[in-house]
Amino acid sequence: MSNNEYINNTFPMLASIDSPADLKRLPVDSLPTLCKELRGFLIHELSTNPGHFASSMGAVEINVALHYVFNTPYDRLVWDVGHQAYVHKILTGRRDRFDTNRKMGGLSGFPNPSESEYDTFIAGHASNSISAALGMSMASELAHEHDRKVVAIIGDASISGGLAFEGLNNAAMHNNNLLIVLNDNDMSIDTPVGSLGEYMTDITTSKRYNTMRYKAYQFCRRHHIVTEHGRGLALRFNNAIKSLLTGQQNIFEGLNIRYFGPFDGHDVVKLVKIFNDLKDMTGPKIVHLRTIKGKGYGPAEKDPTTWHSPGKFNEATGERVKADTTGQPTKYQYVFGHTLVELAKQNPKIVGITAAMPTGTSMSMLQEAFPERTFDVGISEGHAVTFSGGLAKEGMHPFCAIYSSFLQRGYDEIIHDVAIQRLPVTFCIDRAGLVGEDGVTHHGNFDLAYLRCIPNMIVSAPMNEHYLRHLMYTSQLPGMGPFAIRYPRGKGALVQWQCDMQQLPVGKGRKLTQGTDVAILSIGHIGNNVARAVELLRQEGIAAAHYDMIFLKPIDQAILAEVASKFKCVVTVEDGTVVGGLGSAVAEYMACNGAAVKLLRMGIDDHFVNQGTVAQLQHLCGIDVESIVNRVENLVKGESK
Amino acid sequence: MSNNEYINNTFPMLASIDSPADLKRLPVDSLPTLCKELRGFLIHELSTNPGHFASSMGAVEINVALHYVFNTPYDRLVWDVGHQAYVHKILTGRRDRFDTNRKMGGLSGFPNPSESEYDTFIAGHASNSISAALGMSMASELAHEHDRKVVAIIGDASISGGLAFEGLNNAAMHNNNLLIVLNDNDMSIDTPVGSLGEYMTDITTSKRYNTMRYKAYQFCRRHHIVTEHGRGLALRFNNAIKSLLTGQQNIFEGLNIRYFGPFDGHDVVKLVKIFNDLKDMTGPKIVHLRTIKGKGYGPAEKDPTTWHSPGKFNEATGERVKADTTGQPTKYQYVFGHTLVELAKQNPKIVGITAAMPTGTSMSMLQEAFPERTFDVGISEGHAVTFSGGLAKEGMHPFCAIYSSFLQRGYDEIIHDVAIQRLPVTFCIDRAGLVGEDGVTHHGNFDLAYLRCIPNMIVSAPMNEHYLRHLMYTSQLPGMGPFAIRYPRGKGALVQWQCDMQQLPVGKGRKLTQGTDVAILSIGHIGNNVARAVELLRQEGIAAAHYDMIFLKPIDQAILAEVASKFKCVVTVEDGTVVGGLGSAVAEYMACNGAAVKLLRMGIDDHFVNQGTVAQLQHLCGIDVESIVNRVENLVKGESK
Repeated sequence: MSNNEYINNTFPMLASIDSPADLKRLPVDSLPTLCKELRGFLIHELSTNPGHFASSMGAVEINVALHYVFNTPYDRLVWDVGHQAYVHKILTGRRDRFDTNRKMGGLSGFPNPSESEYDTFIAGHASNSISAALGMSMASELAHEHDRKVVAIIGDASISGGLAFEGLNNAAMHNNNLLIVLNDNDMSIDTPVGSLGEYMTDITTSKRYNTMRYKAYQFCRRHHIVTEHGRGLALRFNNAIKSLLTGQQNIFEGLNIRYFGPFDGHDVVKLVKIFNDLKDMTGPKIVHLRTIKGKGYGPAEKDPTTWHSPGKFNEATGERVKADTTGQPTKYQYVFGHTLVELAKQNPKIVGITAAMPTGTSMSMLQEAFPERTFDVGISEGHAVTFSGGLAKEGMHPFCAIYSSFLQRGYDEIIHDVAIQRLPVTFCIDRAGLVGEDGVTHHGNFDLAYLRCIPNMIVSAPMNEHYLRHLMYTSQLPGMGPFAIRYPRGKGALVQWQCDMQQLPVGKGRKLTQGTDVAILSIGHIGNNVARAVELLRQEGIAAAHYDMIFLKPIDQAILAEVASKFKCVVTVEDGTVVGGLGSAVAEYMACNGAAVKLLRMGIDDHFVNQGTVAQLQHLCGIDVESIVNRVENLVKGESK
Repeated sequence: MSNNEYINNTFPMLASIDSPADLKRLPVDSLPTLCKELRGFLIHELSTNPGHFASSMGAVEINVALHYVFNTPYDRLVWDVGHQAYVHKILTGRRDRFDTNRKMGGLSGFPNPSESEYDTFIAGHASNSISAALGMSMASELAHEHDRKVVAIIGDASISGGLAFEGLNNAAMHNNNLLIVLNDNDMSIDTPVGSLGEYMTDITTSKRYNTMRYKAYQFCRRHHIVTEHGRGLALRFNNAIKSLLTGQQNIFEGLNIRYFGPFDGHDVVKLVKIFNDLKDMTGPKIVHLRTIKGKGYGPAEKDPTTWHSPGKFNEATGERVKADTTGQPTKYQYVFGHTLVELAKQNPKIVGITAAMPTGTSMSMLQEAFPERTFDVGISEGHAVTFSGGLAKEGMHPFCAIYSSFLQRGYDEIIHDVAIQRLPVTFCIDRAGLVGEDGVTHHGNFDLAYLRCIPNMIVSAPMNEHYLRHLMYTSQLPGMGPFAIRYPRGKGALVQWQCDMQQLPVGKGRKLTQGTDVAILSIGHIGNNVARAVELLRQEGIAAAHYDMIFLKPIDQAILAEVASKFKCVVTVEDGTVVGGLGSAVAEYMACNGAAVKLLRMGIDDHFVNQGTVAQLQHLCGIDVESIVNRVENLVKGESK
């Protein structure tokens, strides 16, 4: 039986749905069955083709009810982050291609307008949905499409981001049809952080309030006192009661956004009713739904952090398939976590900051060893950076670990709150360069370029685990200013990562191989591709000198002078955009010193890169071993003609 | 009588205060007199040496009471933005140097730790104070300095920024002594925006609630039921009453931050009492003070927007000294505003977005002509960008006008929410390059570098008002993607700015003068310095070819090919960092094409720049006319040796 036959047999109702129109033909009381099938389908698909599991499982009913009630794609669903939107993809004509999810040339793991008209806005970084949806809603108003509904679906972790707050704060400023669906699973990837998280738990647990509020709401509807004024009164009354009962204040109502809930986000029939009730109400409103991350799959409900993105697993047993890593290099993240604990033991000034990614970055290791010196600030990268600046200003040495593409959210804070004051903050930039399956929104391709132009910054990247350790050690020595260390997701280059940590001279690179035909300058882990390419080139009779720059800024002037004077062919290799990074720094030196070299900059050319495995993407971008060999060969042969 | 003598005679109490210790010696009932003298001093000083007037006048009592009560500099005052902190500077040993405020080599217009130990953190961009103060407070806890108080003083406009919200959302996560003083003058520079602004007006106007709340608070204190538990109960009760009375919710209490107020921020004796009451209370707390921007000076109270930064004025009459601008070029801002209205009349898809700067950017002109198509989103640059993305996704053409250094706050949003989807948003980047007296935090020196590395972006800069108009026109034509136009603060280059708008070919520059000795490539308004330098060089016998690139990205390859083949000496001039901008783009071309040129990159070298007039700073950075002449001359002579 083919996989398609298996799916058609096992999930017959789902198999009949090729578009939301098919979904709308189902009677409402069959929706729970559909949700059950969808869960089975997700388990089946994701067990062999890994993806974001627990979020998708938790949002099945929300996805179904939204497409059942709203007139998509005319009405706009704007997903925040989009981990929660797998079912949305499955229901909108992409079921049969779902086995290509996150693969090269396949479906994107996040909503992407270039993929489907149902995907209304890009969604990879948290907290953007309210602002984007508000813009879409206002555009509809201006175009006199007053009947269009725009729905932002946002998780409880995403809503803590400053961008989401800015959106909320502006939502009530204009006439619009915005509906915000708060998918509150009391989890981000790890545990929730911030007062807003506590707040939502609190208001949810007030059963008396819940009951009273919803009854009042239903009463109003029943008696047709749902005029604007009447509803306002009812809400106000409810909120006052809530304050008395729970001692809590409603933040959303404080921002002039009508609040409804919390409701059970897994009761699909009730969700349909609620969305139908709310959809024609004008003005911004928020409906608060309680869901369980991983719902419907025992192992995931028990450990949603692990099951956020579990990799392959055995569908029947829930056992995760672990690759045999014996004799393989350790992950950079693991080395980072261990090394940070080691350093923190020696240096009491060291503190750790993560923005909602303790597990992903391995900041969790410091959290375990020194809980009082570890700060998980939630999804709020700007705050993470400025908070680090404040800690550093008072004598601490913060290690602020943020994924490269998310650090873009803290760009002004790096310049304004850290670099101007030359504060000693170590930026541990995880997921730098091509990240693979997470795709276009997640590649960390810009950090070298956007950091290099900031005065006072030290910008570095280790070629292997030992250099990661050396750089971390060096960054926390007295007298250092802001110090960025970027390293990729996943495996390092060495099997034995342990070593004594050494102080590295800032701004000094190292020469790995001698050669006379071409100089290859690389920075960071991609240097391992270069090293292998250099061996292969030697077999082809091309002698390449390979320099591991270690520091992009300050850059090693002695190496550049040596290269400028001794070589005609110069190559730079970096795992990042070729615009503004290492290639540009080398170009500046060569052009400003009148060096008669021919420079070839290898890296990510000036375009966005979609998903694929890292190996596939390196090949696509021409920085895998084979491409490096070929391109260097062509350069050397071309110049020697 | 010298100015010093005048000051000593006119403000005798103030003249006796050289440090907060002197202030603390005054009896509390003399503080109103001191405040009066401080206002007189501010009026006297700022009438001849312009600065941020209205904010400073509105915060006199807050400044005095804070230094009177808190043990500065051991206790930390963290000012947000810092317009409000002039009195802080005057009270902390800088009175006699206050006439150097905002001048080159003088006092910074904002708090700056490199200037005084009383300035605890940099403050130029809004909304950073809570995060920074929280970091400082946590560092004090970790260092066992539990008695240190950290106070963040933030305006009602700044608190609407996402960064401030992220700080608030994290404030209650840990044990700390943070006090947030909300200086609520119901104004940012223009009028306040967002629900939070409305919210604060509402809670303030509830007199019944005010009275009841403060009485309950005093009752608790009087009866010594100020235990943690007792205060919690009292607060909860008060909030519930407030909800009933006003229908409003307390957002701060919702975030677990104890809220006190609102109180009259101009009653200095009462402020002293309140700060004394609150200073030993542990845990994060916010005190809400109502103030009047421009307080104590009639003209400023009446028109605080104009008096935000009024320039010179007649102390006695309040008449502003206007320079005679007859025959002078118009401001870029004025041309921008007029042109946008003109375009909006032709193209109904055009909408305007500003982040709290309608007057500063001249977005106010569109606001007047098309109020429903203009959005002032308040201090929330990230939202401004993503909101623009949403509008563009639904077919509008947003002109999003943000100051260059503030746009750093929207960096991820440019990449993630606009560039990936190649949405047609025109970024009107005001205050690009050196801005003058606002200094280190406000120079727009990084935009060319941080935008050039983003795929799909068009990055441009007009050399004069006509090109601003041409670029604005071109940017809104069908088929364009994200389009950045950067232009400086203040005067353009032409007296007659009106002209027919033309479509410019994207990525094409223009040759302004022929020459054979050296090629000078410039971008933007700084090209006018180059044009004058080229004339002077010609008189010296050096024939320079001058190219106005117009577009940094895509860059004109034909010009670069011509330059590479015909010139040995190549110079780039830009009003921005030399790391990553025009100079780098030209270097990349030359090095990658093996061109045997000697490149000189002129611009802002790789360091931060303090305040001064634009002319002074251009000289300092070597991009004034004289420096360009000298540096080009040296290059040409050096190469011809």
